[in-house]
Amino acid sequence: MPETIERKELEDLQEDLREVQELLRRQQLVEGLVERQERMANRELVEQLVHRQHLAELGRKLEGMHPADIAYILEALPLDERLAVWELVKADRDGEILLEVSDAVRETLIRSMDSHELLAAAEHLDADEIADLAPDLPADVLQGVFRSLPVEEREELRAAMSYPEDSVGALMDFEEISVREDVTLEVVTRYLRRFEELPDHTDQVFVVDRDEQLKGVLPISKLVVTDLDALVRDAMVTDYVALYPDDKAQDAAQAFERYDLVSAAVISSKGKLIGRVTVNAVVDFIRARSEAQQLAKGGLREGEDVFAPVWQSVKNRWTWLAINMVTAFIASRVIGLFEGSIEKLVALAALMPIVAGIGGNAGNQTITMIVRALALGQVGDEQSRQLLRKELGVAVVNGLIWGGVLGLVAYWLYGSMPLGLVMTAAMTLNLLLAALAGVLIPVVRMRLGFDPALGSSVMITAFTDSGGFLIFLGLATIFLL
Amino acid sequence: MPETIERKELEDLQEDLREVQELLRRQQLVEGLVERQERMANRELVEQLVHRQHLAELGRKLEGMHPADIAYILEALPLDERLAVWELVKADRDGEILLEVSDAVRETLIRSMDSHELLAAAEHLDADEIADLAPDLPADVLQGVFRSLPVEEREELRAAMSYPEDSVGALMDFEEISVREDVTLEVVTRYLRRFEELPDHTDQVFVVDRDEQLKGVLPISKLVVTDLDALVRDAMVTDYVALYPDDKAQDAAQAFERYDLVSAAVISSKGKLIGRVTVNAVVDFIRARSEAQQLAKGGLREGEDVFAPVWQSVKNRWTWLAINMVTAFIASRVIGLFEGSIEKLVALAALMPIVAGIGGNAGNQTITMIVRALALGQVGDEQSRQLLRKELGVAVVNGLIWGGVLGLVAYWLYGSMPLGLVMTAAMTLNLLLAALAGVLIPVVRMRLGFDPALGSSVMITAFTDSGGFLIFLGLATIFLL
Repeated sequence: MPETIERKELEDLQEDLREVQELLRRQQLVEGLVERQERMANRELVEQLVHRQHLAELGRKLEGMHPADIAYILEALPLDERLAVWELVKADRDGEILLEVSDAVRETLIRSMDSHELLAAAEHLDADEIADLAPDLPADVLQGVFRSLPVEEREELRAAMSYPEDSVGALMDFEEISVREDVTLEVVTRYLRRFEELPDHTDQVFVVDRDEQLKGVLPISKLVVTDLDALVRDAMVTDYVALYPDDKAQDAAQAFERYDLVSAAVISSKGKLIGRVTVNAVVDFIRARSEAQQLAKGGLREGEDVFAPVWQSVKNRWTWLAINMVTAFIASRVIGLFEGSIEKLVALAALMPIVAGIGGNAGNQTITMIVRALALGQVGDEQSRQLLRKELGVAVVNGLIWGGVLGLVAYWLYGSMPLGLVMTAAMTLNLLLAALAGVLIPVVRMRLGFDPALGSSVMITAFTDSGGFLIFLGLATIFLL
Repeated sequence: MPETIERKELEDLQEDLREVQELLRRQQLVEGLVERQERMANRELVEQLVHRQHLAELGRKLEGMHPADIAYILEALPLDERLAVWELVKADRDGEILLEVSDAVRETLIRSMDSHELLAAAEHLDADEIADLAPDLPADVLQGVFRSLPVEEREELRAAMSYPEDSVGALMDFEEISVREDVTLEVVTRYLRRFEELPDHTDQVFVVDRDEQLKGVLPISKLVVTDLDALVRDAMVTDYVALYPDDKAQDAAQAFERYDLVSAAVISSKGKLIGRVTVNAVVDFIRARSEAQQLAKGGLREGEDVFAPVWQSVKNRWTWLAINMVTAFIASRVIGLFEGSIEKLVALAALMPIVAGIGGNAGNQTITMIVRALALGQVGDEQSRQLLRKELGVAVVNGLIWGGVLGLVAYWLYGSMPLGLVMTAAMTLNLLLAALAGVLIPVVRMRLGFDPALGSSVMITAFTDSGGFLIFLGLATIFLL
């Protein structure tokens, strides 16, 4: 990587994107021209001169860009243009770029590479980075990579691949620097000078004893301001955050956030230093998790390449549509039970979606609140009861206000006071149901060990739809017919 | 802050929370006891001995905790217990803790403090931190804080308060260290040694000329490994990220993420160094933004204190419920148009929510995808058209699959082939409408300068509900009656 690689803000990056697109477009014009020329005669001249000239210009442009920025541009391009750009990227940067692109785009890039290219790409990566790519690599390539590594890195790769995706082990890298506690800072400084460059995010070195047991940490900022004759033992900080590789990544992220960490040691259950987690891995994790949550709420299994073929998108989205179809079918059968009532009083058909819809909206508000509180681990038994009381209170107030308004609207539209009263009562009851389900669904899911957020919106809507229809049509059948 | 403050993982923190609650409970038992004793006689003995003993124990417990952890515990406690704990926290830590708690909880804490206490709390904070608290402070307190600051910090506070909430200026702090380019690293090292401790997240010092113009950055890790006789000019890195205070915080966050930064310089439009942004501010921003998005999707204006009074929660949630009521009312009137048809064929009433519901679900999937792509700035004119084509393709496939299934279900339930065909056609058309609205709503909102995510779910549901009813009942009226 040349030292002059530019780092850009989003606007400049969008400018770059437009420029790449422009170059590609010119390239395509040329290709069209070449094709037409082919049918005529002197194609070689055109191809060699004009065609290559644009590609070279594009290549130079990419040369000066940061891997993360190339990843950004690759993601923003449709498949054929994306692969054209990918072809131009220098092979020794392939690995870094593969790490930066989204999973869906990574798949398309890897599919375009042969085993040889993939092996070459992996060569420039650290063990923990290869572990990140591993799930997307063909088995034979992974085998090859494995064999090509020195023994120590092979062990690291094996270790990194053994941890589940959302554990600290998966965020860990092996670039930690460790020193002994019985040497002076002078010695540490000399040791550090032997590095050409310290690993990224080295804000501290780790102090270990003979058996690699972690004893403390020595912040670089402390190393810089402390007398060099001091012993590491006296300068080191013994109050540090150490993580275990089996800890949840989410908990580690909260620790980084709460304590404003740049790096943290990862130790084995016996206290041996085995690696470190850095803030950039944590930032990526936080971002990916928040995105996954947003996608899950929308009923998408994973991030979609925006230019994915239609069929792939259909597959990505079908699960929730299917679940939604089942819940909608149940709600429909609830209405089916009351077809007799609707035939007699057709106004019910027009009013029932309001009861169900507003219940769903209120239920989603409740569940959003509770899921958030649960994620922070702030909800115990005592608090669940308090929250339930509060949400039921909110439901009664909202039921009387909005139910009252809707009752008046129903009265105004259909001139029937009893219909208005049924509307108000149904709204209030459905909001109470929404509050109850909104608190209990995530709390129970949490107790059972499931992610309380996943599918919460579909479930609460199922309750408030079927429940709303049942309550409204039931009350109407009892009191109006 | 004593050096021995422990840093904990979530589990230990929950343990702490339980312990604090236990101490509070004992405390309450004692208070109950004291009350009963009061009615009897020797209350003083009990009060002085037992009562104070528990408070002292709780106080000691809090003493050893990190401000962020105390904030966590305050958030997890109901109001009365929260204020009891808040009373016990040493006054010189109030400011730090106020910075850590959520907005809603901060309000309850500030309301319990008088001007004197608030002034004292602000005393221990930096200018940029005071700026974060400023919106919640009473005007007279803010005035007092202002007057109490030295001139330089007063300027910093004025500057920090002048930037909008989601700008780089709001994330900025003023703890940057700057050096000149014509000195040796030896001189820099000696200069740094004069600090007792470097400011947190000092991974680099900034190189400026006589006029405070930023010339480059000197990473501490480079300072550590480079020969001390070298000049700063030769050791410094000139390829660095510099932000402007008016840049969007979101763009800065993406730069931190893309380039794995720990800190970045903030410069004026004339290139003068005015501050820095550190990764911890960025992490907090990313987290807060993702939370705000989740809350907004659920129709909540802001994070609610989970123990907020009912009335406050009602106020926080009413806007979206009101909007939802309007859209539900419109959908209801669409149904009202077809009451005659429903009277003749009551099956329509039972089937119509399925068409609307699945359309809403599919529309939400599309809009989630598009909003994500828009947020990354990867969607231009050309891409919008491609995306629209793709989403319409997905809609046709889904319409034929799911619409086909539902058509069969309708045929099976009601034994009418034409009804089944209308169902399939209506599903397909409503999914096409969902795809169209799902792409166009966020793209148009973006063009008009609005946040494409805000309220997207309510809007798409309004389209697919009213549209779904209209399409299904309309087709049924034309072809079945």
